[in-house]
Amino acid sequence: MRPLCSAAVRRGDGDARVTDVDVVVVGAGLSGLTAARDLDAAGLSVLVTEARDRVGGRTLNATVAGVNVDLGGTFIGPGQDRVGALAAELGCATHPTRTAGDNLAFWNGRVRRYSGTIPRVSPVTLADVERVRLQLERIMRRVPLGRPWDAPDAAELDAQTVASWLEKARATAGARSLVGVITKTAWGCEPNEISLLHFTHYLHACGGLNPMVDTEGGAQQDHFPEGAQQLSVRLADKLGEKVLLGAPTTRIEWSEDGATVTAGDTIINCRNVIVSVPPALRGRITFAPLLPMLHDVLPQRWPQGVISNVYVAYETPFWRAAGLSGQVVSDAAPIYGTFDTGPSDDGPGVLLGFVGGSYARDFATLPPAERKLRALSAFATFFGAAALNPIDYIEQQWGQEPWSGGGPTSAVPPGAWTSYGRALAAPVGPIHWAGSETADKWPGYLDGAVSAGERAAREIRTRVQGVSA
Amino acid sequence: MRPLCSAAVRRGDGDARVTDVDVVVVGAGLSGLTAARDLDAAGLSVLVTEARDRVGGRTLNATVAGVNVDLGGTFIGPGQDRVGALAAELGCATHPTRTAGDNLAFWNGRVRRYSGTIPRVSPVTLADVERVRLQLERIMRRVPLGRPWDAPDAAELDAQTVASWLEKARATAGARSLVGVITKTAWGCEPNEISLLHFTHYLHACGGLNPMVDTEGGAQQDHFPEGAQQLSVRLADKLGEKVLLGAPTTRIEWSEDGATVTAGDTIINCRNVIVSVPPALRGRITFAPLLPMLHDVLPQRWPQGVISNVYVAYETPFWRAAGLSGQVVSDAAPIYGTFDTGPSDDGPGVLLGFVGGSYARDFATLPPAERKLRALSAFATFFGAAALNPIDYIEQQWGQEPWSGGGPTSAVPPGAWTSYGRALAAPVGPIHWAGSETADKWPGYLDGAVSAGERAAREIRTRVQGVSA
Repeated sequence: MRPLCSAAVRRGDGDARVTDVDVVVVGAGLSGLTAARDLDAAGLSVLVTEARDRVGGRTLNATVAGVNVDLGGTFIGPGQDRVGALAAELGCATHPTRTAGDNLAFWNGRVRRYSGTIPRVSPVTLADVERVRLQLERIMRRVPLGRPWDAPDAAELDAQTVASWLEKARATAGARSLVGVITKTAWGCEPNEISLLHFTHYLHACGGLNPMVDTEGGAQQDHFPEGAQQLSVRLADKLGEKVLLGAPTTRIEWSEDGATVTAGDTIINCRNVIVSVPPALRGRITFAPLLPMLHDVLPQRWPQGVISNVYVAYETPFWRAAGLSGQVVSDAAPIYGTFDTGPSDDGPGVLLGFVGGSYARDFATLPPAERKLRALSAFATFFGAAALNPIDYIEQQWGQEPWSGGGPTSAVPPGAWTSYGRALAAPVGPIHWAGSETADKWPGYLDGAVSAGERAAREIRTRVQGVSA
Repeated sequence: MRPLCSAAVRRGDGDARVTDVDVVVVGAGLSGLTAARDLDAAGLSVLVTEARDRVGGRTLNATVAGVNVDLGGTFIGPGQDRVGALAAELGCATHPTRTAGDNLAFWNGRVRRYSGTIPRVSPVTLADVERVRLQLERIMRRVPLGRPWDAPDAAELDAQTVASWLEKARATAGARSLVGVITKTAWGCEPNEISLLHFTHYLHACGGLNPMVDTEGGAQQDHFPEGAQQLSVRLADKLGEKVLLGAPTTRIEWSEDGATVTAGDTIINCRNVIVSVPPALRGRITFAPLLPMLHDVLPQRWPQGVISNVYVAYETPFWRAAGLSGQVVSDAAPIYGTFDTGPSDDGPGVLLGFVGGSYARDFATLPPAERKLRALSAFATFFGAAALNPIDYIEQQWGQEPWSGGGPTSAVPPGAWTSYGRALAAPVGPIHWAGSETADKWPGYLDGAVSAGERAAREIRTRVQGVSA
């Protein structure tokens, strides 16, 4: 895919190209493109600069055995109004994630069938998980959305990891493993890597633990049969030449009056900038003058997690005939969770497997053939030996994507929110911040990407057009 | 200061300059220059690329009222053999840090005099600090130098912050404050930001808490009257045109056979590279192909702390006449510790104040005049109203130095050492790693910078010349 070349950009012979717009949006992920769409619709001239030769950021469409699959952001669920409205407007259909049949838990070396959300592990574990959930949700209600540092016990919550909190709460080994599945899924990390304040703030932003982890009635309820990246592709299509691909933004010179953005060999003068990249990647851009200190050093304290997705395709979804949904929760590496994302009972059958946190780190050290073997072995453990004979296999390691820096989202360590969080989304002169991580609701999700883009666009319109935010 | 232009570099008209050497060293701090010196002495051709227009990294000489002072790395103490040997070789004299007279503690709003290392706070606090110290040193002995992940309880130590450990250990408020002074000093952070594994490993690497915090007999025992930056300046003088200033390294293309380094407008082909920058800043360099995943994402998990140094000069060191050493430990912002770094009793009098961690963050948000006012107020609290009438004042905020990313050294959060630590100093193809943070002994100190540079040079000589490591 070649860059959509902006007609607004004058190309000199061998020289940098220089152009002028009202707003430069750095990053053509879902958040940046949403912001650009809103500003464009409001009559401001925009240019979106994107490092990659594609749009969509952490959403990425691919095919396995000819079936559309999502290698990154996938799901949409109840309460995710912003991405829902955008999808409807863009004509991106959604489809329920398959839940028919029994789920499986592979736990303590045994496979068990269960139905509903809570995996059938031991009764003791289940009771303890419920206790832990209630405690976490009690904390979460004290953590104000978008301002976790204002929680009455913010300092205490931000001084501990989720792992040390679980220890203090005397959580059973089983409950700790299940929380580990949640941290791997939500942030691509282990409980020892993130702050309890981050965990509970995020929980609050999703409305609780069940909305986060559930399929029916939760964040995994529906997906986009054409792929979630289509949202960005369609936004970019409408923006046309206002999206500049293959142009990594390396430098932003700014003053109170405006900015000059260097992206690839293009130099853009503008009145405002929206930086819509994961917080950790802000640090790759040279800001001149330097950003205020908290903004300047925040990227060092806001790491992306690591997650890898594998897809395996079979002639038929044979597990369906056995009455299985294709959903698994596992306490063993490399795959801690699966979904059936195939189109129909007639085939092909498609399974998505998640490899996150420590599993993704170990996975990355293996040669490709060994990775595939381990993934297939895991599927065979869950669904039987038939899983060893796929017709197709693909994988995506987000920890190996320099323009994402990892995935699915930021895994924020202790001490970061209370000391640096105020700089996460606070504008600096003409520079505003988008990206799902800056959203107050559903951060790290497609919905957060959309709402953060909308919010950043509103900030600029308030500044430039006097529109009330 | 203009770049020392390398004669080895061919400059084309308007084109990139291309050159070939055996080894490129990225970063002309003390560690990189030491590595370059060793390789040069071993007959290998080297080129050191440096982003700044000066050498010395986090050492920086300045004057206040005409007196030489260190704005960054300052001290040398017993057991710091590597920097000691280098200083002797380069003819950089050392001088005992002034300790004559009584020290002051400003604690719970009261100033008290004391002598020796342990500030005279309450007896309860003192007893508790001793208990905490013994516990930390008992842990530290289980943490192997350079391999903290091999500690028998590494997972547990790395799952908690120092703050949550102090809570679990039921440390008194006074002991926590004192540990906070230590984390501000050593890493420019608060106890809630770093892993207990990092703390205890670092302690071990310094031989215990007292060697770390003591002046007499400890790491602050001596300093360099001409400034610690002189070590780097003299190394660079000997290397001459082999040091290229004002040339930020942006890209390293590598294979098993060698690498091509882009630094400013210079392109250098080489057989090996030593990257000698703080771990967090490795992420600003584009590696092609990508580094292995753990190496690639480690910089996101190895933040630099934040520290600021202020110097204030007076006509005379009036506190000396009052029998005071000029050393203070304080539990109040902005200055938690001071030293007398003036040359003689006749004047001028010079006080160094440290502003680290949360104090440095708050300090950075103030206008310059307000910062100076608060610093002077603190000195006046300690030494009386005469401190309000300085003849000179300077400050250095390491959190505002893009080519250091903060200071004094890395403040490593939970989960990082056990999951990513193996990638900190492990070579990747032709790429080796130096910088004080990669040292097994005295990491973060001048001594660690020297030993890490020496170790990286040995690795290359082993690889290229077959010299035994």
